[in-house]
Amino acid sequence: MPYIKLESHLPGITGLLEYSKDTSQPIRDLTQVLLRGPSSLSEAERELIATVVSHGNQCVFCTTAHTAAADLLAGESETAACVKTDIETAPVSEKMKALLTIAKQTRESGKSVTVDSITRAKVAGATDIEIHDTVLIAALFCLYNRYVDGLGTSLPENEEYYGVLADRIVHHGYTRLPQGYDHLKGNNR
Amino acid sequence: MPYIKLESHLPGITGLLEYSKDTSQPIRDLTQVLLRGPSSLSEAERELIATVVSHGNQCVFCTTAHTAAADLLAGESETAACVKTDIETAPVSEKMKALLTIAKQTRESGKSVTVDSITRAKVAGATDIEIHDTVLIAALFCLYNRYVDGLGTSLPENEEYYGVLADRIVHHGYTRLPQGYDHLKGNNR
Repeated sequence: MPYIKLESHLPGITGLLEYSKDTSQPIRDLTQVLLRGPSSLSEAERELIATVVSHGNQCVFCTTAHTAAADLLAGESETAACVKTDIETAPVSEKMKALLTIAKQTRESGKSVTVDSITRAKVAGATDIEIHDTVLIAALFCLYNRYVDGLGTSLPENEEYYGVLADRIVHHGYTRLPQGYDHLKGNNR
Repeated sequence: MPYIKLESHLPGITGLLEYSKDTSQPIRDLTQVLLRGPSSLSEAERELIATVVSHGNQCVFCTTAHTAAADLLAGESETAACVKTDIETAPVSEKMKALLTIAKQTRESGKSVTVDSITRAKVAGATDIEIHDTVLIAALFCLYNRYVDGLGTSLPENEEYYGVLADRIVHHGYTRLPQGYDHLKGNNR
């Protein structure tokens, strides 16, 4: 049972984004720019950052949703499974290992990011913007994970839900509301 | 020295908001809605939530800036100082004590928010929207604190800077860029 009154058929973040539309619009916009906007990091790589952070924060809804999105984008499920277990032995580039390590440190605290991990990323070819986006994606999912779990949102009734959600965020992105949701009640503010 | 190349005269969050304008716009919009938009929580109360979370995350820039904003809005500096030390003995209402406790729990982890702390807030008269906004403000400052410290941003050269910044965010809000900043370089993406 969520801690506040949300639409019961909308689990995880989806009920919150409907509950407060004036805050959900900038949250959607920020996510769209960071995860789907122009970037030298692929969409799959950016979903891996979201996955590693959500997993570290033990947010079941976000971890499962972004694992499904990363899998769909990559066309396989090994990589996302591996980065959650051990970044160093995962089948990703040295640059991605360095960036995922920075994301993991950012999740703990901004102060946990080390000069060594930044240097490793730069030596592996990471640009300033890639490092910037990695830290901000990690910070954004620290927001999401706290928003979703801090208000006690519910999980979907079955696992197939995540496949539908992944399809939506891979093919439609984070900004647009899916068809059929327009009838839901407006802002509660 | 910041981990990425930022304008050296812009400390803390200010250099980051100039560095990446396509991400800073939704971050500014979200902050403006949550901290300055219509709410039954006063602006000073919302700045206290930002202060408590930033203090818990040991983010010096954000803690000092939002303490200064809370002080300016309240017309005194005792309340912000007290909530950072001990919420229970601070000169705030029982409802604010309950909401600040929820914010502190959200800072630790979304999973740290307890049914007891939610019940306490509701018994003290907190509405669903107030609880929602408290959790989301706390989550937003978990983003800010990680963004500011995770990229190793610098502190201002002198403490007077925070008074100027507080004056700006109290009188102009979070959305509008201050005059004189327009000449700075655009997006680095």
